[in-house]
Amino acid sequence: MFTLYHTPNTCALASLIALEEAGAPYRIARVDFAKNTQRSPEYLAVNPKGRVPAFVTDEGILTETPAILAFIAQSFPEAQLAPLASPFEFARAQAFNSYLCSTVHVAHAHRMRGQRWADEPEAHAAMQRKVPQSVGAAFALIEDGMLVGPWVLGERYSICDGYLFTLAQWLEADGVDLTRLPRVLEHRRRVKERPAVQRALAAEQGGAR
Amino acid sequence: MFTLYHTPNTCALASLIALEEAGAPYRIARVDFAKNTQRSPEYLAVNPKGRVPAFVTDEGILTETPAILAFIAQSFPEAQLAPLASPFEFARAQAFNSYLCSTVHVAHAHRMRGQRWADEPEAHAAMQRKVPQSVGAAFALIEDGMLVGPWVLGERYSICDGYLFTLAQWLEADGVDLTRLPRVLEHRRRVKERPAVQRALAAEQGGAR
Repeated sequence: MFTLYHTPNTCALASLIALEEAGAPYRIARVDFAKNTQRSPEYLAVNPKGRVPAFVTDEGILTETPAILAFIAQSFPEAQLAPLASPFEFARAQAFNSYLCSTVHVAHAHRMRGQRWADEPEAHAAMQRKVPQSVGAAFALIEDGMLVGPWVLGERYSICDGYLFTLAQWLEADGVDLTRLPRVLEHRRRVKERPAVQRALAAEQGGAR
Repeated sequence: MFTLYHTPNTCALASLIALEEAGAPYRIARVDFAKNTQRSPEYLAVNPKGRVPAFVTDEGILTETPAILAFIAQSFPEAQLAPLASPFEFARAQAFNSYLCSTVHVAHAHRMRGQRWADEPEAHAAMQRKVPQSVGAAFALIEDGMLVGPWVLGERYSICDGYLFTLAQWLEADGVDLTRLPRVLEHRRRVKERPAVQRALAAEQGGAR
């Protein structure tokens, strides 16, 4: 039994989707950003970074979405959630997920988390103004090539798809020009139809289980 | 034979170190930031992101340091550069590298690359003022626990060590309080002593090969 420390409407959804796709046994531990629970001593003992997700296994605690996703894929190979047999194909999956965490998510974070990188409110406002463009440009690279189609890596659904779906949830709030991203939107629609994703979305909103 | 698209004093050094540690056959293709080569049509055909590193293999091109490092470790298992036998231990390595790319490197990038996230010079200046604190805080988490010791993952050197060494090269220029980071500095000194790292540093400065 795994425990996923999770907050709704965060990138933790990607791990939740992977768990559902894998048919893995898990429970959700809610981290309440509204109450600043992520900075509580109890949660910092789980994840000193004070972020979600954190993922508790029998062997220890993992953080960082790309690492958690790869762990789930490797731990449930029968679910075929990553191209594990080929180091190159596996690296392609890792490269995609690394881009999501270090470029796409980071661009998005400048809308709400500007205090990480500057102290002055004027700088935070400047960051917010840039988000439609910076997030849009990051997604344009996905639109124009990284998303092979029909799934991110090609013919087979993978951990990359649930992660892309998760970050694509934020496009409207980030003010991105959606007309530029028809393939990303069509992908988002198809991922959402998957039964495992529907279960993950219900679990996300449904409280502890 | 691999080709590493590389620029000195960038995170591409981490891949160079891993290649040397693995004893992999490679050549360096220089990308000259001073001439903005990374935005040339020729280079964008290799890496549409316009960043380094890019890594050309017989199977295709990889980008993103964590993915390249994992690929090298998996392709040269005899070099024992990652704990490949255990999905959990491998995920720990991936989590560390993911933190470096998405948090540590991103904090650092606000000193010189602020135009990615805001247009106004005042905002760039505000970002620069925060770098000693934000990079320092990111390294403090490494100092206080993520760096298990003597190497990042514990008793055995891994791809994580060369990557941490690479980003720790920038601490002085980022204005970080080094007195807070004795373990990181001692680790940096020990990594630099490794013959493979010496070869990588020489190759980095030595031009094409």
